[in-house]
Amino acid sequence: MAERIRLGMIGGGKGAFIGAVHRIASRMDGHFDLVAGALSSTPEKARESGEWLGLAPDRSYSDFREMAIREKRLKDGIDAVAIVTPNHMHYPVAREFLKRGIHVICDKPLTSALPDARRLAKLAHESDALFVLTHNYTGYPMVRQARGMIAGGEIGTIRVVQVEYPQDWLTEAVETSGDNKQSEWRTDPARSGAGGSTGDIGTHAFNLAGFVTGLELESLSADLQRFVEGRRVDDNAHVMLRYKGGARGMLWCSQVAPGNENALRLRVYGDRGGLEWAQEDPNYLWFTPFGEPRRLLTRAGAGARDVSARVSRTPGGHPEGYLEGFANIYAEAAQAIRAKMAGQPVPADVVYPTVDDGVAGVAFVDACVRSSARNAAWIRLA
Amino acid sequence: MAERIRLGMIGGGKGAFIGAVHRIASRMDGHFDLVAGALSSTPEKARESGEWLGLAPDRSYSDFREMAIREKRLKDGIDAVAIVTPNHMHYPVAREFLKRGIHVICDKPLTSALPDARRLAKLAHESDALFVLTHNYTGYPMVRQARGMIAGGEIGTIRVVQVEYPQDWLTEAVETSGDNKQSEWRTDPARSGAGGSTGDIGTHAFNLAGFVTGLELESLSADLQRFVEGRRVDDNAHVMLRYKGGARGMLWCSQVAPGNENALRLRVYGDRGGLEWAQEDPNYLWFTPFGEPRRLLTRAGAGARDVSARVSRTPGGHPEGYLEGFANIYAEAAQAIRAKMAGQPVPADVVYPTVDDGVAGVAFVDACVRSSARNAAWIRLA
Amino acid sequence: MAERIRLGMIGGGKGAFIGAVHRIASRMDGHFDLVAGALSSTPEKARESGEWLGLAPDRSYSDFREMAIREKRLKDGIDAVAIVTPNHMHYPVAREFLKRGIHVICDKPLTSALPDARRLAKLAHESDALFVLTHNYTGYPMVRQARGMIAGGEIGTIRVVQVEYPQDWLTEAVETSGDNKQSEWRTDPARSGAGGSTGDIGTHAFNLAGFVTGLELESLSADLQRFVEGRRVDDNAHVMLRYKGGARGMLWCSQVAPGNENALRLRVYGDRGGLEWAQEDPNYLWFTPFGEPRRLLTRAGAGARDVSARVSRTPGGHPEGYLEGFANIYAEAAQAIRAKMAGQPVPADVVYPTVDDGVAGVAFVDACVRSSARNAAWIRLA
Amino acid sequence: MAERIRLGMIGGGKGAFIGAVHRIASRMDGHFDLVAGALSSTPEKARESGEWLGLAPDRSYSDFREMAIREKRLKDGIDAVAIVTPNHMHYPVAREFLKRGIHVICDKPLTSALPDARRLAKLAHESDALFVLTHNYTGYPMVRQARGMIAGGEIGTIRVVQVEYPQDWLTEAVETSGDNKQSEWRTDPARSGAGGSTGDIGTHAFNLAGFVTGLELESLSADLQRFVEGRRVDDNAHVMLRYKGGARGMLWCSQVAPGNENALRLRVYGDRGGLEWAQEDPNYLWFTPFGEPRRLLTRAGAGARDVSARVSRTPGGHPEGYLEGFANIYAEAAQAIRAKMAGQPVPADVVYPTVDDGVAGVAFVDACVRSSARNAAWIRLA
Repeated sequence: MAERIRLGMIGGGKGAFIGAVHRIASRMDGHFDLVAGALSSTPEKARESGEWLGLAPDRSYSDFREMAIREKRLKDGIDAVAIVTPNHMHYPVAREFLKRGIHVICDKPLTSALPDARRLAKLAHESDALFVLTHNYTGYPMVRQARGMIAGGEIGTIRVVQVEYPQDWLTEAVETSGDNKQSEWRTDPARSGAGGSTGDIGTHAFNLAGFVTGLELESLSADLQRFVEGRRVDDNAHVMLRYKGGARGMLWCSQVAPGNENALRLRVYGDRGGLEWAQEDPNYLWFTPFGEPRRLLTRAGAGARDVSARVSRTPGGHPEGYLEGFANIYAEAAQAIRAKMAGQPVPADVVYPTVDDGVAGVAFVDACVRSSARNAAWIRLA
Repeated sequence: MAERIRLGMIGGGKGAFIGAVHRIASRMDGHFDLVAGALSSTPEKARESGEWLGLAPDRSYSDFREMAIREKRLKDGIDAVAIVTPNHMHYPVAREFLKRGIHVICDKPLTSALPDARRLAKLAHESDALFVLTHNYTGYPMVRQARGMIAGGEIGTIRVVQVEYPQDWLTEAVETSGDNKQSEWRTDPARSGAGGSTGDIGTHAFNLAGFVTGLELESLSADLQRFVEGRRVDDNAHVMLRYKGGARGMLWCSQVAPGNENALRLRVYGDRGGLEWAQEDPNYLWFTPFGEPRRLLTRAGAGARDVSARVSRTPGGHPEGYLEGFANIYAEAAQAIRAKMAGQPVPADVVYPTVDDGVAGVAFVDACVRSSARNAAWIRLA
Repeated sequence: MAERIRLGMIGGGKGAFIGAVHRIASRMDGHFDLVAGALSSTPEKARESGEWLGLAPDRSYSDFREMAIREKRLKDGIDAVAIVTPNHMHYPVAREFLKRGIHVICDKPLTSALPDARRLAKLAHESDALFVLTHNYTGYPMVRQARGMIAGGEIGTIRVVQVEYPQDWLTEAVETSGDNKQSEWRTDPARSGAGGSTGDIGTHAFNLAGFVTGLELESLSADLQRFVEGRRVDDNAHVMLRYKGGARGMLWCSQVAPGNENALRLRVYGDRGGLEWAQEDPNYLWFTPFGEPRRLLTRAGAGARDVSARVSRTPGGHPEGYLEGFANIYAEAAQAIRAKMAGQPVPADVVYPTVDDGVAGVAFVDACVRSSARNAAWIRLA
Repeated sequence: MAERIRLGMIGGGKGAFIGAVHRIASRMDGHFDLVAGALSSTPEKARESGEWLGLAPDRSYSDFREMAIREKRLKDGIDAVAIVTPNHMHYPVAREFLKRGIHVICDKPLTSALPDARRLAKLAHESDALFVLTHNYTGYPMVRQARGMIAGGEIGTIRVVQVEYPQDWLTEAVETSGDNKQSEWRTDPARSGAGGSTGDIGTHAFNLAGFVTGLELESLSADLQRFVEGRRVDDNAHVMLRYKGGARGMLWCSQVAPGNENALRLRVYGDRGGLEWAQEDPNYLWFTPFGEPRRLLTRAGAGARDVSARVSRTPGGHPEGYLEGFANIYAEAAQAIRAKMAGQPVPADVVYPTVDDGVAGVAFVDACVRSSARNAAWIRLA
């Protein structure tokens, strides 16, 4: 195993959810060492979090720009940075690192607003550094399996896509309770973007459907709701999808559906078969060749494809989960970064969500919001 | 147990699917005796089917009008008639019996076209005879349970309705194969109506959602597809729903979704909890009071309500199915008919789909077709 | 459809569980008409129950012997009798009808004691009348499917059988509560037999395993418990099984396992594949050809065998349940009885549990009780 | 976060299954750094594997004894060692480290033979070093949850324990195929011990049942089989259990049950409720308070206990799996080791399987083998 990649982190101080996830993901396969961070913009909190994580005091910053400048100069400065701030900071932070040639691993959605997303994509394309977007659900082995099967023609020409992502944690107005930071920034348009559930989880659903099917969205019609009084962004969304080439779909995302924790689920039907996958039971994939009994494929079990096996760590029956899926994005990033560092091309089988996927995601949210504002008028994408 | 109700049947000759179902349903609880029928409009087939079912030769007709006239005159003529023909015949057949005061039990959808539906409703309201529509899924005990729980406020104010009814039997162009009668008439607009999947199963989904939630649809936006080349009606439909009072929903029906046999499924979310039910596993009902663990209610198990128990025949763990649910509609019809025959009011706890539900269903299909023709424009109902 | 078979019933008065089930099962497919009964041995209750069921007053008896004598003499006397009394009465009742050539459909277990079972088998073999034992779970289509697949070699040579039948209704001492008749006689050795859970449900599990696999039990080792204080029969049993030919198994039955309603479940593993079936979800059958993904077969779905299809009434996705499975035993009985009445041999594809299966079941219970009394010593069966 | 614990590893070279698992588990939470190893006893392979894992050349050994001696002397020598060799080497390896005060994290079963297990326990008790046995299934949050609920009386007094662990990977004679190292040593009594499936997975099942219920086994009766011709150890086992205090149970383990990947499953029933857990779906726990509907508890979801929450990394709906459960054992070990290193007592909430649990496990296997050899006679455990 090669030497570890030196990783920095922006955001993700004590108590943050997604920062901790990124750290575990970066660590799981031994590819990265977290050596620097601007874990908070509040100096005191940054310092505390840095200590808690065992960062050297001089590698713990409160200003991400300062960190970018200084780390660039260090002989053993960071090779890559993970950005796990609220959405509105993704762009300004990424910019500082990209322009200094430091690889970026950035949480989704790409940005809080579409113009920022486009600017960021331009920057990323011009930079020599890599940009990896953690649409982590694409890291699940059975998602890779489904994608491989579809590419291999196993369900024929796709007709129908059903994707949904219901949760229930915003059923009540927790953002005004004063003790739920997550809900505060995620329902604040200034930090999260104009989309609420659409931006937070709808983008995941949209991305997953595209990743697995390879289809490109042509237009959508969206009906967004704010069910909780006083909420400033959508907490439920119904979207009809028209893909290029004739496939049709529906997307539902919700944060007010009691009984749903994190129930992302994708179903794809073609003229020769169907596939069904659910994030909460990620080691399974239902596959029906039309006219035959349903089959329950398992991760690393009978019928596993190479694209799935290469992101599996254990045999079938040993469930892998959310963190392993997330770690797969980091493992892909590691392979890509190491190739870059060695001056070699990124291997062809390395797959991760890109800045362009990120632009598509933000464009999706933007289109949902605009469509809904016009009584669910059809909005063309790209 | 009172004497059996004398039942006639129109349609449902040898080989028919739904006719056989109606016969089992009528027989299961011993409320009805099938004594007459016009099982086919082809005399030879009518005679054969009558013999096969053990009808007396002089009670086996090939002309439904003749049957209505003659049975009316007989001393022991039929009390009620079951109409199980293709959709376009529901109206002309029902008319003949209703106007003679013979109770009608009619398969869904009510008619193949909206004007017929309205005429039939008028007739039914003017008639002294009862009109029972076999939206049979409303007969499932756990559907009654869900309805009772919602009426009792257990999930609070409803916000979101997700209802779907995917099948896969029309994935290929079986209607042109020459050996699939079901598919022939069900994809023929002249016999089935302008809606394909929307009329055949979308109406069931629409009806079920309304039955359980008590909500009334205000408007819809529908995107209908004909995925199989040459098909004359929709075989997949995506519909966004706006209910009066603010609840929002999505409805998906499909006959081209491989791996789905008859996968009607309803999910309802309110501000205090959620409910989920699936037709293929009908003895279960998932209930989540917000903030508590999910509970799996079982038919006649702990937590069963009276409205559910009164349509159950066996204790929990002894699965009841499609035929029992269907028989519950017949059992309700029997109670209503017996009350009528005794000159008494229909008991308050007797529940069955009415001609008005039927009109709503046909209006739903009509709105779907019109909306889709106008690029999924919102269509107001009622 | 031929004329209906005239059926009598012994036991099964108002409030009885299994009597009502037999009546529905006899009625569902239109093969039988219930025309006589000794529904209770208490004259007043017999009369009331007879009225409630619409029996003619002179066909409602309180003495089963009198009924057998008189019905035999009637020109339109019963062709068959259903025995649904507590277990200890099966033998004396069946004797009276068998010896008069009246076909017997008898609930399980065959008798409360082994000597009675052997006497009854002798009688049945000597009689011209048929004897059908309602081990109803053998009537499920997917049970027939599993049996057919095993007979067809689809899982190879059987090695391991896992069968279990947990319930929870006797978790507490309901038999002393005064308001639970079922529990009273079912825990009374004089009426139920020496086995409690073993006799009531263990026999079902044992029978199901034998029916599906075709294996014959060679010996068993049983550890029986009475967990509820004061209970007079076992309420939980652990049994190790050795089948002839080398297959091995375990059987667990319990009436004190909270969360289990009626959770009969069978799993069979051979050297080429495995099968799993659960009574509470009876329309599914898991099948794994070794080395391939698991397949979920559905009733009347893809891969259905003839032996399964012939006992199905509806297409896949239209769940059939406990009552349909039970009715299949009645439908098989009807075919056999009609053949007999026509002087023809019973068709080869007609399958039902016989008096010999009943003897095997009682011998199983007897062996369990004896084994447990000897500290789980191995007991040979016949 | 404190400095990382320096970890060595014995066994677990390239291609080994469980070695890789231990490494991921040690890394996931950032508690350990792998700095030394004797990854194989073949020098060439040890060297290669050491390089592959990035060990410094002088910390890569082929002789575990030499490693123990040298690491003890190094200033920055290992604090702890992970033993992931075949079973027969656990004792000799552990001895060398324990006696030098190096903490041991050892794979299960403790040893291949009971006398070794007892000697090892003695050594461990005398040593100042900690001994942690990786019965990893005890690390699952919902297993901790179940244990906490039972300790809290939520299902009352335990009556029945059903535990099973079926797999299918030894359905055929892969151990003679020449290309399956795992199966070779695991079916070799000299390396694995006298128990085959009982030692490899039966011990896990036995341990899990004891861990969750807190019950101590009094005696057992076992029927072991070798279904595959030529196999030298059991590949299927049926065991009846009698716990102290009156609870009774059954244990089934199998490696020849097609369709089962790694289907460890535990069900526990008390006089007030029941619990059910399955390793392949580890984020769920079924809980039925007697007389109420079943509840599906989720990891970190509503109703989660502290003992479960403290070993969870993500919110409900973000599935954690086998590796996280395994890592929890390492995280517990880290806490214990750090306390030791700081001269403090191990915190009371730190829970891991001990050497005594290991002795109990080996005694269980030993008893199974002896019982089966005596026709399933009851064998008392200590």
